[in-house]
Amino acid sequence: MRVALDLLGGDDAPGSVIDGALLAVGSEPDLEIILVGPADLATRLLAERGAAPDRFRVVEATEVVGMDEDPVRALRARRDATVRVAARLVRDGEADALVSTGSTGATLVAAVLTLDRLTSRPALAVVMPTAEGPVVLLDAGASCEGTPDHLVEHALLGTAYAQVLGITSPRVGLLNIGEEQGKGDQLRKKAYALLTAAPLLFVGNVEGQDVTLGGKADVVVTDGFTGNVLLKGIEGATARAGGGGLPVHALLLGVDAVCVVGHGAADAQDIAACVAAAAAAHRDGLIDRLSRKVPS
Amino acid sequence: MRVALDLLGGDDAPGSVIDGALLAVGSEPDLEIILVGPADLATRLLAERGAAPDRFRVVEATEVVGMDEDPVRALRARRDATVRVAARLVRDGEADALVSTGSTGATLVAAVLTLDRLTSRPALAVVMPTAEGPVVLLDAGASCEGTPDHLVEHALLGTAYAQVLGITSPRVGLLNIGEEQGKGDQLRKKAYALLTAAPLLFVGNVEGQDVTLGGKADVVVTDGFTGNVLLKGIEGATARAGGGGLPVHALLLGVDAVCVVGHGAADAQDIAACVAAAAAAHRDGLIDRLSRKVPS
Repeated sequence: MRVALDLLGGDDAPGSVIDGALLAVGSEPDLEIILVGPADLATRLLAERGAAPDRFRVVEATEVVGMDEDPVRALRARRDATVRVAARLVRDGEADALVSTGSTGATLVAAVLTLDRLTSRPALAVVMPTAEGPVVLLDAGASCEGTPDHLVEHALLGTAYAQVLGITSPRVGLLNIGEEQGKGDQLRKKAYALLTAAPLLFVGNVEGQDVTLGGKADVVVTDGFTGNVLLKGIEGATARAGGGGLPVHALLLGVDAVCVVGHGAADAQDIAACVAAAAAAHRDGLIDRLSRKVPS
Repeated sequence: MRVALDLLGGDDAPGSVIDGALLAVGSEPDLEIILVGPADLATRLLAERGAAPDRFRVVEATEVVGMDEDPVRALRARRDATVRVAARLVRDGEADALVSTGSTGATLVAAVLTLDRLTSRPALAVVMPTAEGPVVLLDAGASCEGTPDHLVEHALLGTAYAQVLGITSPRVGLLNIGEEQGKGDQLRKKAYALLTAAPLLFVGNVEGQDVTLGGKADVVVTDGFTGNVLLKGIEGATARAGGGGLPVHALLLGVDAVCVVGHGAADAQDIAACVAAAAAAHRDGLIDRLSRKVPS
């Protein structure tokens, strides 16, 4: 199990990334971490921490995409950016999964440009912990215009991912502004009809509170605009109420490899959790499941 | 100051409504409550509680719209529904404001059908308390398809409402999936350009967390679909984190009278707060301010 890890991604990189990598290899015996970043920097940081040399590889990449840059423009200009190099390692079979806590947009664009796609529109999936079990919310912001067909794709991707999480028959809900059929805008009305006919367990409309309270659906599908606003609103409301336990990473579903995107503010523990999530998804055959679920 | 109050609206009506009305008249010396519902029921409940007769009037209305009914169809069939009768009292100058904790859809439809409109698309505005002061979020679900022009109307309505709340120069933010200009879907991109040119203090894009954490904008505008999902997501996240302090009512802005819509689960305290909000909005000249702000 080899995870390509972006050494320069995140607010506290590279220190948080190295420390997270050390935590991850400490708890995953079969894990090799490929640190993608300036080789001299990586080598020095590993030596300073006395890291076991057989658990790490270093692959040189010197450029980085900033959090506020336009990712498409930045990546076009920087073929040597860490996320692009990491995505190429996955594409070329040198790594099994990609993890970055840098710019979400840059990771998405690098993955979509480099890897084969399983669906027309990849989606970011977050796992929301609730008292009733995990709820997979997608799309949390990979794209911002959605069609009814995209929502069905998201539902199929989310179903496969929920099965990897141990939910045998995931219930799929459509995020809407009321539970009754016929609610919502044209996108929701058309998606409702398509979801009813799709090969999945569609339980109808669900609402914003069902993402955090759970119990109604295991997978909640929405367009990336609404999903992103909702996720950040939940983060803000949780912070305001002094709560915790929110997801620290998202999986990019719909490309031909495991890609985990972490929060820019991730600390070493969060980064270790991102690596563990990538390792678990790879081990559980996420990509095979996705490929079987989504019509190619 | 006369508030028409829907006696049959809400999960615990009519008891919670009567008790809320008593609390409200106890703290507002100039307030008269017009109870709209079955007259014999209202009279009996008032007598049981020893209510001062000069603070209450009763107007007969015997029908109600259920929470799960289609409001347009239900109101068309029931001209004598409590919310319709209450809206007519306001239209005819017999009441200054309308308050209901029944079906939100029914209250909206009754208000829009009965009252003159100030804007092409009325919006539900909620006031989110934050550590940095109140944030007005709209549209929280009055309609579910939005255009760039509607978002500008919402921004003008929200600005006038924030001024009533004591914010002299309200900052208006556009709810989006990133702060940089150029983010979002076509609706957001077009709305951004229009908001920049509109006669208001536009501060650019804001994100989901800014609604609960505050500090970036005093008014956050979005389409009713996104606003409704976000509001319910915030409610769910706050409940999950064991927090409180969320809004218990929304104002319908864009019609020619003060209309307050309370949560169906409102208790007597919440209903008193709804009545107090309606009284304050009327006293502070909300409708005059809205009329001046919005081009007719």
